[in-house]
Amino acid sequence: MSHKYVYFFGDGKADGDASMKTLLGGKGANLAEMTKIGLPVPAGFTLTTEVCTYFYAHGKQYPPELKAQVDENIKKTEAAMGAKLGDPENPLLVSCRSGARDSMPGMMDTVLNIGLNEKTLAGLIKKTGNERFAWDTYRRFIQMYGDVVLGLKPQDKKEEDPFEKIMHDLKHERGVTLDNELTVADLKVLVDRFKKAVKTRTGHDFPEDAREQVYGAIGAVFGSWMNDRAIVYRRQYNIPHEWGTAANICSMVFGNMGDDCCTGVAFTRDPATGENVFYGEYLTNAQGEDVVAGIRTPKKIEELATEMPAVYKQLDEVRLKLEKHYRDVQDIEFTVQRGKLWMLQTRNGKRTGFAAIRFAVDMVQEKLIDWKEAISVNRIPPDDLNQLLQPLFDPDAKRKSVAEGKLLAKGINAGPGAACGRIKFFAEDAEHFHNSHKGSPDGRVILVRRETSPEDLRGMQVAEGILTAFGGASSHAALVSRQMGKVCVVGCSALKIDYQAGTLSVGEHVLRDGDWLSIDGFTGEVIAGKVDTRPSEVVQVLIDKTLAPGKSKVYKQFQKLMTWADKVRKLNIRTNADSPSQAEQAIAFGAEGIGLCRTEHMFFDHIREMREMILATTPEARKAALAKLLPFQREDFAGLFRAMKGHPVTIRTLDPPLHEFLPHDEKGQKEMAHELGVSIDEIHNRVKALHEFNPMLGFRGCRLGIVFPEITAMQARAILEAACIVKKEGGEVHPEIMIPLVGFKRELELQAKVVHDTAAAVFKEKGITVEYMVGTMIELPRAAMAADTIAQQAQFFSFGTNDLTQTGLGISRDDYGSFVRQYIEGDIFKKDPFQVIDFDGIGLLMQTAVEKGRKVKKDLKLGICGEHGGEPDSVKFCHSIGLNYVSCSPFRVPIARLAAAQAVLEEKAEKARKAAEKKAAKAAK
Amino acid sequence: MSHKYVYFFGDGKADGDASMKTLLGGKGANLAEMTKIGLPVPAGFTLTTEVCTYFYAHGKQYPPELKAQVDENIKKTEAAMGAKLGDPENPLLVSCRSGARDSMPGMMDTVLNIGLNEKTLAGLIKKTGNERFAWDTYRRFIQMYGDVVLGLKPQDKKEEDPFEKIMHDLKHERGVTLDNELTVADLKVLVDRFKKAVKTRTGHDFPEDAREQVYGAIGAVFGSWMNDRAIVYRRQYNIPHEWGTAANICSMVFGNMGDDCCTGVAFTRDPATGENVFYGEYLTNAQGEDVVAGIRTPKKIEELATEMPAVYKQLDEVRLKLEKHYRDVQDIEFTVQRGKLWMLQTRNGKRTGFAAIRFAVDMVQEKLIDWKEAISVNRIPPDDLNQLLQPLFDPDAKRKSVAEGKLLAKGINAGPGAACGRIKFFAEDAEHFHNSHKGSPDGRVILVRRETSPEDLRGMQVAEGILTAFGGASSHAALVSRQMGKVCVVGCSALKIDYQAGTLSVGEHVLRDGDWLSIDGFTGEVIAGKVDTRPSEVVQVLIDKTLAPGKSKVYKQFQKLMTWADKVRKLNIRTNADSPSQAEQAIAFGAEGIGLCRTEHMFFDHIREMREMILATTPEARKAALAKLLPFQREDFAGLFRAMKGHPVTIRTLDPPLHEFLPHDEKGQKEMAHELGVSIDEIHNRVKALHEFNPMLGFRGCRLGIVFPEITAMQARAILEAACIVKKEGGEVHPEIMIPLVGFKRELELQAKVVHDTAAAVFKEKGITVEYMVGTMIELPRAAMAADTIAQQAQFFSFGTNDLTQTGLGISRDDYGSFVRQYIEGDIFKKDPFQVIDFDGIGLLMQTAVEKGRKVKKDLKLGICGEHGGEPDSVKFCHSIGLNYVSCSPFRVPIARLAAAQAVLEEKAEKARKAAEKKAAKAAK
Repeated sequence: MSHKYVYFFGDGKADGDASMKTLLGGKGANLAEMTKIGLPVPAGFTLTTEVCTYFYAHGKQYPPELKAQVDENIKKTEAAMGAKLGDPENPLLVSCRSGARDSMPGMMDTVLNIGLNEKTLAGLIKKTGNERFAWDTYRRFIQMYGDVVLGLKPQDKKEEDPFEKIMHDLKHERGVTLDNELTVADLKVLVDRFKKAVKTRTGHDFPEDAREQVYGAIGAVFGSWMNDRAIVYRRQYNIPHEWGTAANICSMVFGNMGDDCCTGVAFTRDPATGENVFYGEYLTNAQGEDVVAGIRTPKKIEELATEMPAVYKQLDEVRLKLEKHYRDVQDIEFTVQRGKLWMLQTRNGKRTGFAAIRFAVDMVQEKLIDWKEAISVNRIPPDDLNQLLQPLFDPDAKRKSVAEGKLLAKGINAGPGAACGRIKFFAEDAEHFHNSHKGSPDGRVILVRRETSPEDLRGMQVAEGILTAFGGASSHAALVSRQMGKVCVVGCSALKIDYQAGTLSVGEHVLRDGDWLSIDGFTGEVIAGKVDTRPSEVVQVLIDKTLAPGKSKVYKQFQKLMTWADKVRKLNIRTNADSPSQAEQAIAFGAEGIGLCRTEHMFFDHIREMREMILATTPEARKAALAKLLPFQREDFAGLFRAMKGHPVTIRTLDPPLHEFLPHDEKGQKEMAHELGVSIDEIHNRVKALHEFNPMLGFRGCRLGIVFPEITAMQARAILEAACIVKKEGGEVHPEIMIPLVGFKRELELQAKVVHDTAAAVFKEKGITVEYMVGTMIELPRAAMAADTIAQQAQFFSFGTNDLTQTGLGISRDDYGSFVRQYIEGDIFKKDPFQVIDFDGIGLLMQTAVEKGRKVKKDLKLGICGEHGGEPDSVKFCHSIGLNYVSCSPFRVPIARLAAAQAVLEEKAEKARKAAEKKAAKAAK
Repeated sequence: MSHKYVYFFGDGKADGDASMKTLLGGKGANLAEMTKIGLPVPAGFTLTTEVCTYFYAHGKQYPPELKAQVDENIKKTEAAMGAKLGDPENPLLVSCRSGARDSMPGMMDTVLNIGLNEKTLAGLIKKTGNERFAWDTYRRFIQMYGDVVLGLKPQDKKEEDPFEKIMHDLKHERGVTLDNELTVADLKVLVDRFKKAVKTRTGHDFPEDAREQVYGAIGAVFGSWMNDRAIVYRRQYNIPHEWGTAANICSMVFGNMGDDCCTGVAFTRDPATGENVFYGEYLTNAQGEDVVAGIRTPKKIEELATEMPAVYKQLDEVRLKLEKHYRDVQDIEFTVQRGKLWMLQTRNGKRTGFAAIRFAVDMVQEKLIDWKEAISVNRIPPDDLNQLLQPLFDPDAKRKSVAEGKLLAKGINAGPGAACGRIKFFAEDAEHFHNSHKGSPDGRVILVRRETSPEDLRGMQVAEGILTAFGGASSHAALVSRQMGKVCVVGCSALKIDYQAGTLSVGEHVLRDGDWLSIDGFTGEVIAGKVDTRPSEVVQVLIDKTLAPGKSKVYKQFQKLMTWADKVRKLNIRTNADSPSQAEQAIAFGAEGIGLCRTEHMFFDHIREMREMILATTPEARKAALAKLLPFQREDFAGLFRAMKGHPVTIRTLDPPLHEFLPHDEKGQKEMAHELGVSIDEIHNRVKALHEFNPMLGFRGCRLGIVFPEITAMQARAILEAACIVKKEGGEVHPEIMIPLVGFKRELELQAKVVHDTAAAVFKEKGITVEYMVGTMIELPRAAMAADTIAQQAQFFSFGTNDLTQTGLGISRDDYGSFVRQYIEGDIFKKDPFQVIDFDGIGLLMQTAVEKGRKVKKDLKLGICGEHGGEPDSVKFCHSIGLNYVSCSPFRVPIARLAAAQAVLEEKAEKARKAAEKKAAKAAK
């Protein structure tokens, strides 16, 4: 038997099922599954992803056995639908759609109404009795096929689509403005002119043969797997190019044959809030693409109950059946053709973080899933928790803005949260503006569009929020925002957007490019100007204590989730915090210690004394200046110990280069000279002496402490005196003193000696001793390679993955802007290595350090305090190499807790999978 | 039996021998050996290095069994010498000297004349019949013992030695200027005052008991192992602190008892030129220290033949016996006491590079050693070859200077070569001046001193040459210069040096601090002003071809040595060369290919076109500018291929950041704007845009080629077109195109594709193909860790150890000046990692890369092109990890050849040693 490349579905039977997404793509697998469970699906068949892979591996040729299989499946489809492809009497029309393993909405091509030609058009008229509908379908088909398959759609966006131009000219000739004002005669003229345009552009007649049309469409769909925006999309969502797409040939059903027809999209629950209500929208007498494109604003799904009660009832039953079957919220597409419901698609619904958590928690209660499933990454990507912690508008500030008449309009709340930024109308402008204000709150952007398209992806990525005038909760803008966790308001039709003038107006109110705008993704409100924000409910409960835990549903869901996560995770979660208030926040979010307290700010807070120290030319003068800094640092550390209530506190000794503490402008230098009573020349000389060509690789980290051991001694004294004080107060303290930028065992040895000598002196003075540890950061490649020797001197290692990435890759994060775009687009970076640990490079260094360190010291405590410590994939990596803890910023602690739990569950699943594979392999032998 | 801590020698018998240097130190082992082979050695005994190790491990306590062993050995010594310690009638006097495994001249303490007190003084008078000698010996003893053992010598150099002061005051009282003008009565007063000073300073009487004196001296010698300058010295010469020193107690013999006495030092051959003549000097009626201290200028050894013919004959026999016995040139100390010769020391003589090579080659001819021994590192440290390649004074220039009356004086030629620099009188000034002119020829220094001492080491290190007014060929200055390979002239007594005034004068001629001075280390000439230099003989033969090979003895020796080295070495030696002339030089020195051609200078040579390229904002404009650069680069490469005559040529594509090609001062920017016809603002903006915080980690290396593939394409085209041209001329070409700063496989893949595409196009155009390779530098830690994946795309790896060290250690060589001193002194860096590969860190990265690379590609070609490629220890490391070649600057090629040969021989010896150990261990079982 030849290899099976084509899978049939229809008439309650299907060759595939939902488990075969790799082969059939998501759409194809679910069409098969829906058919199997008895839902009304128009018959058709799926060309597998293997066809696509073959296609690209063989110079765009198909496997030889494909044709026979397609022919056979066309026959089956014809039989199921009772119509024939190309039959002038009773023509079967089909669509051809892409469908990859993961959904890539709108990225690839689709062709509808395949099978129409001069002859079958007559059949369609006869079958439907609707000449206008048939001619309109025909002209749509020629346009779509011409654009997509025959390549008439201009690549350059400045050029006009030839079909659009012909349409526009004809409307002008006829003196009409809307498409549906054109008569049947007009449509015939249009078809004629369209075909002529095809002949002129391609040199060939428009293909009349239905089968030729089918193959043309298949080729276009497979071809679109490698179009630019699909490649960009895959890069962003990390979908391998090797996966390929399937192509689905599906019998056409029409939602635009009359008022007993409609087409719609829906979610089985509300994907924004997570509420268990049917949530969707539809358009009467319309094609499916009209809903998604956002050109007409659709009706809410509830209205269908009134308009077509029987269909609504059937659809609601489908909804419940699908959820029970898939055990997850579904995003469905349906069409009603002359009162008959057809299901065109189902897939797991994209959702906000709020919804994801609510779905998960609710479904555990409903016993649809167990709690382990609830906290899996498929249900809740850890970053989703971010949304629960994000600020909302301050109600008073918002009320005030509204009272001042600044509420412009209300749209559809498509992505929750509060966002405030400068209006930008074009994705490119948004990107450019954002990049030129990097990090500044003044550089926040609200991207404002009539509707968005895949071309806008980059602009959406940099925007705080997205606002569109058209489209509903299933429009491109809404879907993508939800996935990106962006605040989003869509379908705000009151807005008049003039791209040319660069204005956004509502009545009298006119805002311009660059003006401030605030949008509320919970309510859909659009407000002129800046509106102050307030913390989320979870933050109100945990941090501000302004809301009782019992009063917040969101908090209760969050808390349940965290309890489940904590049950399984093995990693401890610590936080990077420099002050008692940060430490308290982190504790509230579940932190189990401080993994990194940077002491820089303590020096900045007393910059005068710090500068005295830097200007000192003898150890004595340096010690005198340091003595002034001691009491301040001691007080800071005591505060930290009190806040951490016995949790371990890792404190890093001074790390940044000294020149960071000196003013670099003439004015500042003059002030400093005046303040310290020294000559300006002295300041100049010191600044000059401290200047470095590559400060990242210069006089910093423990190198400071080696050259000026008195700095380390002062800090050790401040830490240990503070520890003694708090212990005497009855508190528990676990200071861990961390030496930065160590590359050689001897560096740590020298610095540890300073600490131990100081400790002995302090304990003697205070008449009390405190347990403490001395360890090091592993943030240089040499440290990783020499971890076995360094471990002899260290009680703990903490990976400083920021610097380890910079030195290991030889890339300065401050300077990589000149080439990072090409590195992402050229697939050199799989992900930005400063966001996600570069597993295959930096990760290997970490693994080496872990192995070498533990070889020497079995119980060596290992952690990470680089920014990667709060990034889910990196957290999982840290779990996999056996770290004891990760440390991250307070607001990322919950994310890390969840990721750490998922790491355990995924590891178990992977082990089980491998064991099963092994068993199967054994059984096969 | 208790552990043996003390080894006796005397009377033709000895407990130890020359093989026991580890235990007895060099001095002790050789005293034993000399005794055994029948040379006249004053009896004595050695306290082993284990005593020193024990001493430091046990809070400066001795092993309990030591005392009994010392007592026993004192008795044996007394028996051998026929005198008794503390015997008023016939007192034995002894010295106590340090002696480590490796010689550390002048670094540790010595005490002479131990055993003298009021009573034995009488015995000494009676024995010698020389009251003046006895009293002078006594006062010397009290002073030395007081300074060294009782610690009266001031630590602060500004303070005066109390004994010197007393001496000075007494001479003042007596109205005399020289020591020997003091009468016996004066010496008695001196002894009295010395003893009082001891009592005042220490609170104790000067020890009268001879045994107490012995133990005091032993303690001082062991204590001096850890004095500052000994530590500095060990660090410089890489002697482990754990080795410890032995202490040698040796019967005193006196060269200062009268005119039938003398003391001297000699080499069995000339250590400067290598000539096989007895070479040394002596002082009649003097103590040994007087020769080395350089206070009196000694007589040449030849004069002894006239002065004491019998002794001279005996000494010459000793010379021949020692050379035959030790099979190497010896550095000996002797004393003649009342006509009887005593040998006090022998050791392998330090030598210049010239001498080392001549010794080795001559001794092979004399059949004293075989050729493998001749090229061993013990005979010729590879860096010694440097001296043979160093410039000499241009004879015409020198003749002119002499004719102009600039020849100031002639001293002793103690370190060969020609040096020219600014006069500096103090080591600190020299160091400071050198550091503030780093790299500039204006910063060259000649250190001018009356005599040098260990305190001057750092100044000597930075100086081009050393000139002293006092001391002979065995003075501190001469010894140390020889070891450092510095040009040195000593004993130039015509010079009047006034430290206070900062002047150097000869008659009327006065030179000042900072003035230019030239010294000829071959002839001893001292010339005012700058004298032009000319190449060495080897360079004249090989490079300039101005000297026939047969005319140069030095060249012939060099050539013989290289032939031997080439017989055994496995590493290929390539060179780093950017131009045909450099390439030709390297070939002459034996290079077997170019390991690194930097293409930067080709861009600098056509900076205008380069700047046009940098200012270009479109690929088209960039390509237009590059097209102008193409013919120049093609011509350069063709020249290189022709020069290399079929040897492989590795060419690196553009590496430095683009901003290096732009002017950074306003004037230069204005000129550039004018020249290119663009606005100054445009230049400013580009400079600003290219500014980087850490250029080392920024937009450079292959990152340039990834963002601007057209640059790589142009360079590939220039290389391959040049290759085609030269091949068409009938030449052989092996271009190896090397992509810099690769961290990810995909980077290399993208750049290799550009090269391969270009190659295909060029070969088609030219109708000819050329074999070429594409490979990469491994100069980032990530590249080392991911070498297995990168190797899939690479035909060769070349380790860029400069950048690998900078990134691996996180240390910028441009910026490490702020802490490198503390890092060397604090034993953090064993050696400067930018000079010698950091084996335990960067070396591990290299090893990882080699293993991973070869795992994927067995025949992967591996080399090194960092500056370490010409450093002997690093060359040996490269051999040990299995590289195919090292590449270094042309003048270091001979050094690398020798080091590569030594690597093979040492590896074999190590294997043999291990096999023997294994066998022995087996036998023992």
